[in-house]
Amino acid sequence: MAKFLTNRDDNYAQWYNDLVIKADLAENSAVRGCMVIKPYGYAIWEKIQAELDRMFKATGHVNAYFPLFIPKSFFSKEAAHVAGFAKECAVVTHYRLKNDPNGKGIIVDPDAKLEEELIIRPTSETIIWNSYKNWIHSYRDLPILINQWANVVRWEMRTRLFLRTSEFLWQEGHTAHATREEAIEETEKMINVYAEFAENSMALPVIKGYKSENERFAGAIETYAIEALMQDGKALQAGTSHFLGQNFAKAFDVQFTDKSGKLDYVWATSWGLSTRMIGALIMAHSDDHGLILPPKLAPVQVVIIPIYKKTDQLEKLNEIAGNIKKDLEKLGLSVKYDNRDNNTPGWKFADYELKGVPVRLAIGPRDLENKTIEIARRDTLQKETIPMERLNEHIPALLDEIQKNIYARALKFRNENTHYVETWKEFIDVLDNKGGFIMAHWDGTTETEEKIKEETKATIRCIPFNTPAEEGKCVFSGKTSDRRVLFARSY
Amino acid sequence: MAKFLTNRDDNYAQWYNDLVIKADLAENSAVRGCMVIKPYGYAIWEKIQAELDRMFKATGHVNAYFPLFIPKSFFSKEAAHVAGFAKECAVVTHYRLKNDPNGKGIIVDPDAKLEEELIIRPTSETIIWNSYKNWIHSYRDLPILINQWANVVRWEMRTRLFLRTSEFLWQEGHTAHATREEAIEETEKMINVYAEFAENSMALPVIKGYKSENERFAGAIETYAIEALMQDGKALQAGTSHFLGQNFAKAFDVQFTDKSGKLDYVWATSWGLSTRMIGALIMAHSDDHGLILPPKLAPVQVVIIPIYKKTDQLEKLNEIAGNIKKDLEKLGLSVKYDNRDNNTPGWKFADYELKGVPVRLAIGPRDLENKTIEIARRDTLQKETIPMERLNEHIPALLDEIQKNIYARALKFRNENTHYVETWKEFIDVLDNKGGFIMAHWDGTTETEEKIKEETKATIRCIPFNTPAEEGKCVFSGKTSDRRVLFARSY
Repeated sequence: MAKFLTNRDDNYAQWYNDLVIKADLAENSAVRGCMVIKPYGYAIWEKIQAELDRMFKATGHVNAYFPLFIPKSFFSKEAAHVAGFAKECAVVTHYRLKNDPNGKGIIVDPDAKLEEELIIRPTSETIIWNSYKNWIHSYRDLPILINQWANVVRWEMRTRLFLRTSEFLWQEGHTAHATREEAIEETEKMINVYAEFAENSMALPVIKGYKSENERFAGAIETYAIEALMQDGKALQAGTSHFLGQNFAKAFDVQFTDKSGKLDYVWATSWGLSTRMIGALIMAHSDDHGLILPPKLAPVQVVIIPIYKKTDQLEKLNEIAGNIKKDLEKLGLSVKYDNRDNNTPGWKFADYELKGVPVRLAIGPRDLENKTIEIARRDTLQKETIPMERLNEHIPALLDEIQKNIYARALKFRNENTHYVETWKEFIDVLDNKGGFIMAHWDGTTETEEKIKEETKATIRCIPFNTPAEEGKCVFSGKTSDRRVLFARSY
Repeated sequence: MAKFLTNRDDNYAQWYNDLVIKADLAENSAVRGCMVIKPYGYAIWEKIQAELDRMFKATGHVNAYFPLFIPKSFFSKEAAHVAGFAKECAVVTHYRLKNDPNGKGIIVDPDAKLEEELIIRPTSETIIWNSYKNWIHSYRDLPILINQWANVVRWEMRTRLFLRTSEFLWQEGHTAHATREEAIEETEKMINVYAEFAENSMALPVIKGYKSENERFAGAIETYAIEALMQDGKALQAGTSHFLGQNFAKAFDVQFTDKSGKLDYVWATSWGLSTRMIGALIMAHSDDHGLILPPKLAPVQVVIIPIYKKTDQLEKLNEIAGNIKKDLEKLGLSVKYDNRDNNTPGWKFADYELKGVPVRLAIGPRDLENKTIEIARRDTLQKETIPMERLNEHIPALLDEIQKNIYARALKFRNENTHYVETWKEFIDVLDNKGGFIMAHWDGTTETEEKIKEETKATIRCIPFNTPAEEGKCVFSGKTSDRRVLFARSY
């Protein structure tokens, strides 16, 4: 199987696409730009959902559901939002089809034209704040801490599975607060939740920081992001949390009476993380043999494969493997026993490597005699044989070690590919010959940022939190700067 | 609170609408026919999802995700399907907006017209079978047992919260099989899963049966349904499972090589259950005081309310109630302690009755002295005071009893409101004066079925499985019939 993958070094983009298809994660659909998320890919999304949902609820949030459709006029209400979002959208103009009077299938019924067009939500701030208007009257109604799991549509011209698709799945949190301070605290809390999720569950080291004005969410006062480094040296924005100030409250006239009886506009945040994360997961960890999934998000954590020649051998192996499976499942692990007889063990080994199953157990007649079992770990491809009785103790520890090792490897890669540069020549040189993150001084102007982007396609990924103040000169303009920012080419 | 609800006897429809709004389950949105599912309503849906998802997985199904959009031409491929579905749909015709050159907000960009219009899925058979075409080549690729959790849109002219909305949430299973027998077995298995879910989790007795040809899903050979009786004597279809034969495989040319090497079309089923079930839940059990939720689906199963006059009393109550909450949570129960000081205990009692919380605990200074606690159950509104030390043993048993009692009550109501009628006069009399289910003979023709519907608005809800063969005469036409079918007016 694995030999059908393009090598990363030969063509990273092709390797990625091959891997998504061959590991059975997703595929393009008949609808331009929309993907089908296949069961194995969706199972990863379910794991992501379960853990994030747990974290959201642990921080006091509840789920709700708002309409898919947004009246066109809603977009015009927040000036920056309309500029940023109301362009490449799917627009519903009619609500009925009818039989073609010429007998050629069905046509759109011209009599069923909507008075006002409906936009498929590209994000839900407008429809949600239009609802919050009726929910919020007094400080007692605050805070509102709501999350929504939903599909959204942004009409993309160039799409790539998981990374950029016209329809994608995500969660979007939308919170309402009585004070500026509380909203900022929420914005920070949620970027921290995302970072914790990325590092702990995805084994993906991330850099937290502010977006520059240019890269902010349309309608936000401040956007925080987590940025991760992929193996080809490009950055991927993995989650964002926005402090929206009173912009949406003013656009939708959402006022409340505070404790002193004074009317004020409500403060808002929003934050989102999407199926794009699956793309990040793939690109950060996987190799030329296939996926490498962190054990915490792997749909199957352990696969057991029987090695046998005769049917009576298989019967014994079925019994032992069945017991191993049950024992490991009791420990809360997800285990698959693959005794299908239409493929060789070698084929199966390659297939589960392609699919990124963290631990593979192989068991044959000799193991039965010796009471041993062969263990292969996907991250390093190392094998060892251990006494069967040690399995229940060894496997959870091994999964834990794999989770940590994948993280450590990604962190090492990021550290080795983060470059502190001082001159424009160095900046260009790193981008063209090494890739990776660049920490460089910037004069703080949008003008410079745009020129850098024009010349190099690199953008400011974020202004990292907690970077030490440091006198320096902008790598492009030579003007003074008081701290470094993070540049990279990005997905 | 409860006094703001219309009584069921005065105006059942108004009572329902009042209850949905006042119990904070859902509300209408700014988009015609689309609802906002509020956190408390959505929490019920999450409980429904969790249990159904568990049942689907236990029966071998996996989840996946297919596009929201369906190319218009796909609907024309299955003749019956286009007749049944491709009418009242949301149609996407454009993919871009732009600034109005006259400065009046934004307009649809006429240059961004789609070559082929896209329909927002009203159901996903067509887009899914178009994908299955590429997935299925041999009998080894079968069965495919996939479920999808998704939003769908059917443009409804008259909408009611949960019961009939233009956008709703649901799950739709789509399976592919090598043989007719296997597909029929799957269709039956899933209607049984729905029935088990309705009866066990929702405490809702249902009648399983076949739909008449007239009421079948567009494109199905056979539709099985579960039908429940609401308190106003109307039926509600609570879930359907369709045997689709080879119709969609033929429409999308999905053939496979069977074990003998012969090419054949694939056999299909589909089955779905939606947020409509929340409407059924409300209408089957609730009363003039508010919701009555079965404990298994109640977002909050137990609420604890402190009764106090002085702050130092509250401090002691907080401590004891906190311990009770922790103890009950250890038993897997979801418990809320409401010590907000802005409402009286009486207000809170009424509010949690309105919200249908199955068990309410009240604890005051005298209880602390006596080591007792007052328990009120929502289904009967009965109160009792028990020693606090018995709580951990009593509450799980009480929740279990409430679950059973709600079911028994609904079953008793259904039995009392199921009428075996022999003549047309009786048929009309029951419909006009009693309502409920009617078991009557029918001659088996669509013509008679339609005339009955025209004259009475009653339809054949289903032809129940396992009704004994019984010679009789059609209640309308007088022609011979060999078994009774279930008639009712319905939602």
